[in-house]
Amino acid sequence: MAGELNGEKVLLAHGSGGKPSAELFQQVFLPQFNNPLLAEAHDGAVFEIGGQRFAFSTDSYVVKPHIFPGGNIGDLAVNGTVNDIAMCGARPLYLSTGFILEEGFDMAELKLIVHSMQLAAVKAGVLMVTGDTKVVEKGSADGIFINTAGIGQLTGNTCISPKNARAGDVIIINGQIADHGIAVLSKREGLEFQSDIVSDTASLNHLVEAILRVAPNVHVLRDPTRGGVAATLNEIADAADVGIEIEEEQIPINEQVAAVSDMLGIDPLYIANEGKVIVFAPSHQAEQVLAAMRTYPEGEKASIIGVVTADHRKRVVLQTRIGTRRVVDMPSGDQLPRIC
Amino acid sequence: MAGELNGEKVLLAHGSGGKPSAELFQQVFLPQFNNPLLAEAHDGAVFEIGGQRFAFSTDSYVVKPHIFPGGNIGDLAVNGTVNDIAMCGARPLYLSTGFILEEGFDMAELKLIVHSMQLAAVKAGVLMVTGDTKVVEKGSADGIFINTAGIGQLTGNTCISPKNARAGDVIIINGQIADHGIAVLSKREGLEFQSDIVSDTASLNHLVEAILRVAPNVHVLRDPTRGGVAATLNEIADAADVGIEIEEEQIPINEQVAAVSDMLGIDPLYIANEGKVIVFAPSHQAEQVLAAMRTYPEGEKASIIGVVTADHRKRVVLQTRIGTRRVVDMPSGDQLPRIC
Repeated sequence: MAGELNGEKVLLAHGSGGKPSAELFQQVFLPQFNNPLLAEAHDGAVFEIGGQRFAFSTDSYVVKPHIFPGGNIGDLAVNGTVNDIAMCGARPLYLSTGFILEEGFDMAELKLIVHSMQLAAVKAGVLMVTGDTKVVEKGSADGIFINTAGIGQLTGNTCISPKNARAGDVIIINGQIADHGIAVLSKREGLEFQSDIVSDTASLNHLVEAILRVAPNVHVLRDPTRGGVAATLNEIADAADVGIEIEEEQIPINEQVAAVSDMLGIDPLYIANEGKVIVFAPSHQAEQVLAAMRTYPEGEKASIIGVVTADHRKRVVLQTRIGTRRVVDMPSGDQLPRIC
Repeated sequence: MAGELNGEKVLLAHGSGGKPSAELFQQVFLPQFNNPLLAEAHDGAVFEIGGQRFAFSTDSYVVKPHIFPGGNIGDLAVNGTVNDIAMCGARPLYLSTGFILEEGFDMAELKLIVHSMQLAAVKAGVLMVTGDTKVVEKGSADGIFINTAGIGQLTGNTCISPKNARAGDVIIINGQIADHGIAVLSKREGLEFQSDIVSDTASLNHLVEAILRVAPNVHVLRDPTRGGVAATLNEIADAADVGIEIEEEQIPINEQVAAVSDMLGIDPLYIANEGKVIVFAPSHQAEQVLAAMRTYPEGEKASIIGVVTADHRKRVVLQTRIGTRRVVDMPSGDQLPRIC
């Protein structure tokens, strides 16, 4: 795989959120758009204008199918950008959206998707204030692609960054992993299977506000989307130059999701989530953070899944259910293209 | 055409910037995302946070071919969003970008495009601070689509809006029309022709700042992109409930562009520009605005092209070179899909 990625063509893996995505960023985007804000490689950029601090983020959505159990490309696009802003410790305020539609796309489906976007925006408490629509010829796009960008405001001295993880930090997740990826797969052409699994797509800004109220100096907030918990933890271990230890037994997972992952031969640690946040908090704040999270429906199953260590820097190590230990690598390919 | 647009499928015309685009906005997006900022239907949204005013805008770019005389999809994507922010009377500061790439897209071409984006960002004085890349399977997109969004800051009491056009206003454009559309067409598969015509793609924020220095209360600023000068003037006439009179002889146009438009049977008033601004200024400020514009390379050929009247409200009327008068309608279809 590694050889191919040095080639001359864009590969699906470059959109995986794993190692090839990081390479594309490091080799193509960062050298050109070189500036300290982009170099942070956070979920969004944080900057100051006239004494106020703002977070700014964007994501494009190409999920296939467009409608899946628990959501569709529309609410996913709103929740995703809301969450990226929240992960900077900011309160999301305003969103923009850009639609790329394929000629012949069903107008009723578009209306349904737009309606879901508005419901998600209302739930998150943000306004969709500006947008754009392009239409390309039949065959030049796959139905609908949606970009959202958003602006949020930071208050106080909140400073959240993957670089801030410290040995001794406790790692918390707000609930079950891998629901989104498996829900999308369950409807994918050629792979359909029966299940009750629904995507976890949700806006997490209210949950994050609750966390910041009890622990305004929490170290890291990150949503484990593409590449799953594995990619997110590896990015943080790398950015902060720390080791990470997680315990398989403590990681919440729906039994059906575990069974399907097993059946498909995919490790749920690598599967995308769309309503999860991983929190790195100083150990003395862990119980307060957990308690605050559990008062929200999106945080009911919040659990401590691991700790940060000064050992095995830049490595994520999993203590398995059967008592063995293994390294959880950064994903190197794309097991699940078009998952968000 | 009108009948089709009421149908159940998205048509190319819905991305034209003309009447069908307006219908899609009015019938699908606005009823859902209903809020006063979006209802302004300006090039961007203007809002206040903590006593400071900001402009926020987005556009997706699907131009075909990706590289054309005078520019490519990359600088176009930067200049377009910079200009939309400038049209709100704001100083553009930060941009985001979302790439959707087709598997197999040439990495060297991507690098060239990204390099052009950075050159355009430097020229405009903005920073590209956050981004996202998705890759879709071969055949699921047409090479590369780019979204940009951006934030700018307003100073003073500047209040620019298409609604502000007033009878007596003088209408000014900064240079020759239709260069962009014809330049793109000249390289389009199946339609290639030899010409020296190059796209006018350029950032206009410095030019706009110069205008606002001499006329901070200029009424309207608008870039006549998709749908050309015709669509822009019709939108303004409609939003402000005024009539517009323009004189064909006063509208700057490159001879080759005029000849090619004639040959192709396209009215240059309907052809996209990517480096033009139309200014509506009170008549007593017209000369000052013109003088300020002419000190910039992008404004060397600035001309007064018409006036706002209290007559024939919501209509744009052209005085032709041969002395006749005709109504310039809102475009109803899409003569030139994938032009930006």
